[in-house]
Order: sequence, then structure tokens, then C-alpha cells
Amino acid sequence: MPGFFMSFIATPQSMHFAEPLPLRSGAAIAGYTLAFETYGTLDAARSNAVLICHALNASHHVAGTYAGQPRSEGWWDNMVGPGKPVDTDRFFVIGINNLGSCFGSTGPADPNPATGRIWGADFPVVTVEDWVNAQARLLDALGIRTLAAVMGGSLGGMQALSWTMQHPERVRHAVVIASAPNLNAENIAFNEVARRAIVTDPDFHGGNFYEHATVPKRGLRIARMVGHITYLSDDVMNEKFGRQLRRVVESSALGDDASAPAAYRYTTQDVEFQIESYLRHQADKFSDYFDANTYLLITRALDYFDPARDHGGQLAEALARARCRFLIASFTTDWRFSPARSREIVRALLDNGHDVGYAEIDAPHGHDAFLLEDPRYLALVRSYFERIARESASAATASPAAVAGAAA
Amino acid sequence: MPGFFMSFIATPQSMHFAEPLPLRSGAAIAGYTLAFETYGTLDAARSNAVLICHALNASHHVAGTYAGQPRSEGWWDNMVGPGKPVDTDRFFVIGINNLGSCFGSTGPADPNPATGRIWGADFPVVTVEDWVNAQARLLDALGIRTLAAVMGGSLGGMQALSWTMQHPERVRHAVVIASAPNLNAENIAFNEVARRAIVTDPDFHGGNFYEHATVPKRGLRIARMVGHITYLSDDVMNEKFGRQLRRVVESSALGDDASAPAAYRYTTQDVEFQIESYLRHQADKFSDYFDANTYLLITRALDYFDPARDHGGQLAEALARARCRFLIASFTTDWRFSPARSREIVRALLDNGHDVGYAEIDAPHGHDAFLLEDPRYLALVRSYFERIARESASAATASPAAVAGAAA
Repeated sequence: MPGFFMSFIATPQSMHFAEPLPLRSGAAIAGYTLAFETYGTLDAARSNAVLICHALNASHHVAGTYAGQPRSEGWWDNMVGPGKPVDTDRFFVIGINNLGSCFGSTGPADPNPATGRIWGADFPVVTVEDWVNAQARLLDALGIRTLAAVMGGSLGGMQALSWTMQHPERVRHAVVIASAPNLNAENIAFNEVARRAIVTDPDFHGGNFYEHATVPKRGLRIARMVGHITYLSDDVMNEKFGRQLRRVVESSALGDDASAPAAYRYTTQDVEFQIESYLRHQADKFSDYFDANTYLLITRALDYFDPARDHGGQLAEALARARCRFLIASFTTDWRFSPARSREIVRALLDNGHDVGYAEIDAPHGHDAFLLEDPRYLALVRSYFERIARESASAATASPAAVAGAAA
Repeated sequence: MPGFFMSFIATPQSMHFAEPLPLRSGAAIAGYTLAFETYGTLDAARSNAVLICHALNASHHVAGTYAGQPRSEGWWDNMVGPGKPVDTDRFFVIGINNLGSCFGSTGPADPNPATGRIWGADFPVVTVEDWVNAQARLLDALGIRTLAAVMGGSLGGMQALSWTMQHPERVRHAVVIASAPNLNAENIAFNEVARRAIVTDPDFHGGNFYEHATVPKRGLRIARMVGHITYLSDDVMNEKFGRQLRRVVESSALGDDASAPAAYRYTTQDVEFQIESYLRHQADKFSDYFDANTYLLITRALDYFDPARDHGGQLAEALARARCRFLIASFTTDWRFSPARSREIVRALLDNGHDVGYAEIDAPHGHDAFLLEDPRYLALVRSYFERIARESASAATASPAAVAGAAA
């Protein structure tokens, strides 16, 4: 009975790591903190851990609400929780805020211990692979050797995929949703528009806006508008907003006759259409909380992700190392990471004879569908995690070595 | 033999109109100049005139080159000229720069005669319908009562379509390419991103940047980048740029071994991928010549165009007035104005029993295909204009009234 579950109280935690983390760029980050949350209980065999990886603007706050803040649901609260598809009554779920983000883990708004000054634009470039290594260190600290599953959507799916190649022996299942094996030229192009908008905002100050007590909000707003358009399908935008005028919406709220033909205001700078009002609102909200340097870092991590690159462009070669089982899912109207991109991953897995399930879900919402309430989609994930739970139950009597063998 | 035609010399002209032009907004523009070009010779019956309407950033300079400037080809030089699909040996072709644009016709960078100050943001909002009325006045002044054809792509196609409804008795054929009966929510959303980038650029100064001797180039660059992405198909972007690194291109130019695996530079603000370099270059060029207020005006003219709006949303009712024959063409990979949008126009024409030909051209280039060299597309337009020429030749012996009757 979705909707009848009470949300649970989530408690953010954080852990400091003193040992420097070597990065793909050749740099290293010396001493950093990771913010994370956990839900559910780690079983005695430490075999029921599920790591949830976040996408561009999300965080470690995956599910539940914060005490006294009833509207603070996590970003995947419909997916993770007691009785939810990723059932925290069975699994020990971990959400981590990635390095370079702005929700509690070390990022560009924090002081650089070497200089005492805010990192700003000097924060090292971090990649999907670096995040995965940082996540692995947190698991070490939590005493978790093997993940029952690693799961993510979009950029989160890239991290899940990377886990299976970087730490194949530590993952039993990977759930990769609305993702891609790399960005295509159009994806990079949209990221670049967003970055140019931020970097050329005079309030960016070369990334050192913190010292000027300002925020490049103009650039962040544009970045968010561009991003938002690519998250939605054409169809759902037409259905939600179409060519509806803002004036009509205002008039209806005032009890005016909405059937009367609305007049254009004939304005180039003010809001005329409802879609404009919606985008400006989303942009304003985003610019109030998101860090501009984090936006650059995370879009670059997206651009750089390309596991086939070190294998002559052969994704199947890159995925040969993987040892886990896979669930790959895509959404028909997702034009940011289209089903064709997920099928590339599936093909590369099949080329290796890996155990892979694939679902192409007929959903109208575009890329955002991975975050939304879609009964077939949620049922698919639920059934996959029920399989994992059954498997773990039967493995509980076996030795850890036997489990690893079965998953190979 | 395309490519063997010598380009001809084009000569820009202009005409001043003293009588105020009433606009759809209720305002009027008092006294204005239109820049235009003509190619070919108007026949004695004044029956071979073809009007070409331009899209967002083009102008009256449709074809030919300017004397002494061999690389100054008009924007549709592959389509219009001696022996070209729209053959200027047969037709008298007219290109007009629209009101509010920035290539010679009166626009926001000109002085407002009422105040003596630059119009800037006070330039009245102009619509597709206003442009058509201004174009009709130019035809009056040139002594042309009836157009053999009106033709345009994208926003130019909207003007061609509007001609058939605003002045049905003055058009014998309308050629509407890669167009739409209105913008959808996603189209408006992309326009709004571009406008916000311009308006929030501190150098915009509320639209009065002329007085500050500056230009909101940051905003114009972002606007152009967003626009450019929507003009190209995903496929053609992948083919032209893919994930190619800028460094690789530079290295090849230096004779370095391009087969060596290129290293990422790991940078968030510098160019890494070739697609970024391309977009920045296009953006810089555009910001050097295009007027920011014109960008706002023309994108708004796009947003506002919606002939069905005054007919309860029924496009067929709006098009009931049309009296001409139609050629509608779209391109399979155009995701800005998809073939489905052209089919809406075709259906509305068929509902009225109008004479309409429709071609959906399998071209890889996206929206930009309407400007490119595609043999099937150019052959289609050529054959349609040959039909118009044959029709005109047989009508030359008949009275103008009989011609009008035949076209009705």
C-alpha cells in the first residue's frame, strides 16, 4: 500500500579520512570528510549492505525525513525504506555524499588544509572512479567487505557500473538505472552551456566567489534551466505546461473565467508562459542551495566517465572484470540517456556472458522517471531486491567464500 | 552540376515607410525602414515574384555575394540563384530583413524617432503577423500584387504559413520547410533559457546597453550555444564531434601521432572536448554581430506565433482562409520542429481540401538540414518550382482574374 508507510527518521553522519586519496588526475586529496546516512541494520554476516549512489544534485539523504522536518524526504524516498522496493527491513542501505559535492562531504566551499583558504576553483577534479574509491573506504570503515548491491540512477548508475569494474570482488549485484556508458556529444554540449553560464557570471570570480561574499546565481539559474529541460520529456512538458499562459493560471486562482480567451501581454522580458514561470522558480530554488564549483566538478565527472576508453573503446573489454549480476533499466522517453545507451551496456555485459536483466520501461516522464512513482518500475526493482534477499538467506548458511563463488 | 554555378552579385537595397504600421500588440511603429534584396527580373505580368522569409539569425541577404566579398554568400545560396532550385532566371526573388532584426531594417539598435534615443528594450514587440504585413507593404511599393510563392524554413516557414491566412488572395504557393504551427513547451523553454542568459547579463543594462557602450556578450554566447545544440541532431553531433578531445585535434595538426591514447587534462573551466571548442567558437562569432534585443524580439515572435489560437485551438479553422497550394517539408532527425509538427499543418490543410504536397526527408542533420546541401531535398524544391513556372507560363495567356480563379 504505497503512501501508507510512515516515513522514518534519518540521521546524517560523517566520517573523516586522514589518509590522502589518490585521484585519477594524478592529484590527491589529503584528508577529507564524507557525509553519509544508513538505514536498516547490518546483519551479522555483514552481507546485506546496499550502497545507493547519487546523481548531480542529490546527496547522502536518500530516504526518510529529518527529525522535526516532515517535508525533508530523501531524494529516493519512494524507493528506499521499510517495506519499499529497497526494503530497509531487510537491507542495510548506505547513502554517501560524493567528494566535491556541497551537502556535507568535503568540497570546494571547504577550506583547503594546505592553505587555510577556501578551495574554490582549486578543488581537485574528481571522477566517478575517485568517488567509487572514496565510497569503498567508507565501507572499509563500516566493516563492510561485500555489497549485496550497488545501485544508482543517471550519474549514480555510472558509479554503480564503475564499482563492478573497480572492485569486482566487492559487489554481488549492480542496479544501473537511466544511465549510459559515457556521455555523447550532445550531453557534453549541454553540460558545457551550463558551465559557461556559471564561469562567465561576473559573480563567479574565477571560482573564488566565497571570498567576495557573493554567489554566481545568474549562472546557476541558467545551468539549472538547461538541465531541467533535459530531464523532462517533450511530451510531459506539453502535458504539464503546453502553451498555457501564466496570466490564465493567475486568473483562475482569482476565480476569473478561465474559459475566456487570455490575451498575450506582449513582453520580451517578463513571464508570459507557464513553462517560463516554472523554470524560473526551479532555477531560483537551485541557485539558493547549490555550489557553483560543485556544479562544474560534477558535470565534468559526467563528461570524463568512459570506462571503455582504457580498452580501445571496447566497453565489453572494460566490463570483462565484472563478477556480479546486473539489472539495467531505462525509460522510453528519456532523451538525455536514451534506452539505446542502456542497451550498449547490456550488449557489453552479454558479450561477457554476465548475468543481466534489462527492462525498458514505457514511462512518459523522460530522464526524471527514475526518481518518480511508476508502479511497473518500482515493482521491477522490488522483485529484483526480493531475489537478492532470497539469495542472501540461502547463502547465510554457506561460507563467505562459497557466496563469492556463486556470484562469479 | 551544383558547384559550377558562378555566384552572382547581390546588392542590398532599402526602403523607408512613413505610414505607421499597426502591430498585433496594439502598439504601432511610426516610420520604419526595410532592408531587402531582389534577384532576377520581374516579368511584365508581375506574376513571377517569390518572397523568401528568414529565420532567427538570417537576413535579406538570401543569395549571391556582395561585390568584392567572395565569401559573403547569402544564407540560402544553395537554394536560390541562376539555375538553382528557386531559379532566378525564371523567378523574381525577394529577401527582406524583418522589423526588429539587426541587419538593416529598423530595429532596437536604431533611434526611436519619438525620443531621439536608441530604442533598446522599448522597441515594440513584433510578431510573425506584423512581419507579414510589413512584407506586404514592401510588395505594394514594388508593384507586386500576387506572389508566385512565399517560402521559408523554420521561423521563415511560419511567415510563409501566415501569409496564406493574412493575405490569401496574394499568394499562389506556399513552401513551408522544417516549421511548426506553433512552439511547444520545450521550444519555449529553450528560448526562455536564451533570453534569461541575455537579460541577466550585467552588460544588458535592461536592454539599454548601447548607451553604456557595451554588449551583453556573455548572454549572447549562451543563447547561441543553446540554440546551436537544438539545431543539430544527436547523431550528427556524435559523428562530427563524438567524444573527441581538443588536444587530439591540436596534436594531429602538429603532426603528432594521433593514434597514441590522448590524456585528459582534468579541467573544469578549459576546453577538453572538441564539441566545447566548436560551441565556444560559434558563440563568440555570434556575439560579435547579433543584437541582444533582436534576439529577445525574434524568440518572442516564435513563442507568440499560434494561428490556431484565435480559432479555439483549431488550426484547420485558421487555415480555412488559405487559397493557395502548399508544399510542406520536414526532416526526420529534426527534434526542434519534428516531422510530427509539419504533419499537423498537413492534416489541417487536408481538412480544408487544400492542395498540399508533403515530404518527410530522411536527413541526418537535424533542424539545420533545411539550410544544407541535400540532393533529394533540393530536387524536391526544384521540381515544385518547375511546376510553378509551367503554371505561370500557361497562365501568362490568361487574364489575372482567371489565374486567381484557378489558384482558389
